[in-house]
Amino acid sequence: MTIKAYGARASNLALEPLAITRRAPGEHDVQIDIAYCGVCHSDLHQVRSEWAGTLYPCVPGHEIVGRVSAVGAHVSGHKVGDLVGVGCIVDSCKHCDECEDGLENYCDHMVGTYNGPTPDAPGHTLGGYSQQIVVHERYVLRVRHPETQLASVAPLLCAGITTYSPLRHWKVGPDHKVGVVGIGGLGHMGIKLANAMGAHVVAFTTSESKREAARALGAHEVVVSRNADEMAAYAGSLDFILNTVAAPHDLDAFLALLKRDGTMTLVGAPATPHPSPEVFNLITKRRSLAGSMIGGIPETQEMLDFCAEHGIVADIEMIRADQINEAYERMLKGDVKYRYVIDCASLAA
Amino acid sequence: MTIKAYGARASNLALEPLAITRRAPGEHDVQIDIAYCGVCHSDLHQVRSEWAGTLYPCVPGHEIVGRVSAVGAHVSGHKVGDLVGVGCIVDSCKHCDECEDGLENYCDHMVGTYNGPTPDAPGHTLGGYSQQIVVHERYVLRVRHPETQLASVAPLLCAGITTYSPLRHWKVGPDHKVGVVGIGGLGHMGIKLANAMGAHVVAFTTSESKREAARALGAHEVVVSRNADEMAAYAGSLDFILNTVAAPHDLDAFLALLKRDGTMTLVGAPATPHPSPEVFNLITKRRSLAGSMIGGIPETQEMLDFCAEHGIVADIEMIRADQINEAYERMLKGDVKYRYVIDCASLAA
Repeated sequence: MTIKAYGARASNLALEPLAITRRAPGEHDVQIDIAYCGVCHSDLHQVRSEWAGTLYPCVPGHEIVGRVSAVGAHVSGHKVGDLVGVGCIVDSCKHCDECEDGLENYCDHMVGTYNGPTPDAPGHTLGGYSQQIVVHERYVLRVRHPETQLASVAPLLCAGITTYSPLRHWKVGPDHKVGVVGIGGLGHMGIKLANAMGAHVVAFTTSESKREAARALGAHEVVVSRNADEMAAYAGSLDFILNTVAAPHDLDAFLALLKRDGTMTLVGAPATPHPSPEVFNLITKRRSLAGSMIGGIPETQEMLDFCAEHGIVADIEMIRADQINEAYERMLKGDVKYRYVIDCASLAA
Repeated sequence: MTIKAYGARASNLALEPLAITRRAPGEHDVQIDIAYCGVCHSDLHQVRSEWAGTLYPCVPGHEIVGRVSAVGAHVSGHKVGDLVGVGCIVDSCKHCDECEDGLENYCDHMVGTYNGPTPDAPGHTLGGYSQQIVVHERYVLRVRHPETQLASVAPLLCAGITTYSPLRHWKVGPDHKVGVVGIGGLGHMGIKLANAMGAHVVAFTTSESKREAARALGAHEVVVSRNADEMAAYAGSLDFILNTVAAPHDLDAFLALLKRDGTMTLVGAPATPHPSPEVFNLITKRRSLAGSMIGGIPETQEMLDFCAEHGIVADIEMIRADQINEAYERMLKGDVKYRYVIDCASLAA
């Protein structure tokens, strides 16, 4: 079946309308009519081949929500008409330790929602900037939010799980003082989620202008990280820091804010390395610098259910598919509050 | 009371015989006649002022064993004649969270055995390259090894606890595959301890010549880290890595050997930074890079008891005090198996 999509034919070309095909649903497949797709910074990196190995045509998009339009004969968990989501993962080996632990995101054979290997044409996966997608039932999530919130649910599938997973893994909860560094697509979700988990949330931003916005998102305190005096007041005070900033920056400034045994977890990978962190900062308080990547499928479902229960969605700006190139340019300037979401109905135009 | 010691009068001078004074034991003090003192790389850094802020005269030494020769009126845990040890810590605030948790090593007011603040003359603490030391009972450890092993027990007070503490904190035990990087004063203890804890131990060394020695210490496997093929065979296979190498080196080569959720803990701080570790290496397997510094007093006692029970001591080369300058030079060349220990009886000469 041929459907409409938006993508790029080469790294130096803008995104444009494309016609792509999707496989007919197999026995374990779910066919989804895509309603909305969030716009992640990874989409831009991939489509411009800023990460190695982009295959063209490239159709980005891994924050997908929509409605089931067909299911394979052996699908039991989803039925036609259900509201569902698909995140960053559409396949994995299904039998390694990671898959057995429900951590498909750490499977060595994890297949990304775009640019991953697949027997389907054109030989690599094509993402959610499209009208439809066909995905193995294991990687399809149930959406329990009201349908009116569906567009704002889309970013939960990447920005939400990428921040929820480390907050859970490092056991953030009441009596925890948690830092969230960066107030963008990921950071704004980190603030909302950590707040809902009962933690005392301290948001860190480089811009004075984001102070009020961070409070509105749920931060109990806001620190402008360029202000050394403000930073010094938080030395040794945080149990955990979720660092969402992918641009190279001084990690020591934040590591020094952790209590003994505290962990700072990075969820963004910079294109060029951060300045090397001082080992002294780790050793003197038994601190850890860690990384975390997306989250597993069961945990993604748990996150969606947690968000539905707590009334959490992303703050979004809706765009048409033909506004995507402009949206990328604005995203590079940080000009988005806090996530663009493509209305995939606009693809039909 | 004036006693004999060995130390330096300035950063550019060799160590020489010095006369120093010790306070009379207070109500909670233990006076120890020092039998042996281990020679730690930190001693050399401090005495040569390679770390900021060395105060002179500087008497190094924080791997102290000996016999109690007097106790204050309120001392209950130690009595004259007992075999005891003193490590890196001789005081702390005693009431912060760290002290209350028995982690005096992370107390912001921890007083090092040398170069720390003290009301005693000359205003900074003087270490174990001396005939006697007077220490608050809280920081005095019981030695349960046979007296014949006393000299080989000395290095447990720093090299032993510095490796024992992270192995315990990160719960190393049976069914764990543990890497120990570097086979020097700390690393040789790390191998012995991890082995005694029941782990499968993989030792990493840069020198082919240390292969057999590492096996003799208790390593089940030995990898020459300069050999890329050997290293590649261990990718993603280790639960925990204890990295004892203080010289700047490529951390990524070792981080890549950790399983998902594995931790590499650094116990040495380089004078210049390590090359910045790749965030990608942390994120893709939720790995952690951590630091650990010495250990608390209760854990130091636990370590000494564990070593006594398992018959573990350090491998040492005994020297006279007047051989210390030569020993430093040899230590810088890695020419020691694996720890020099000063026979403090030689100070009387």
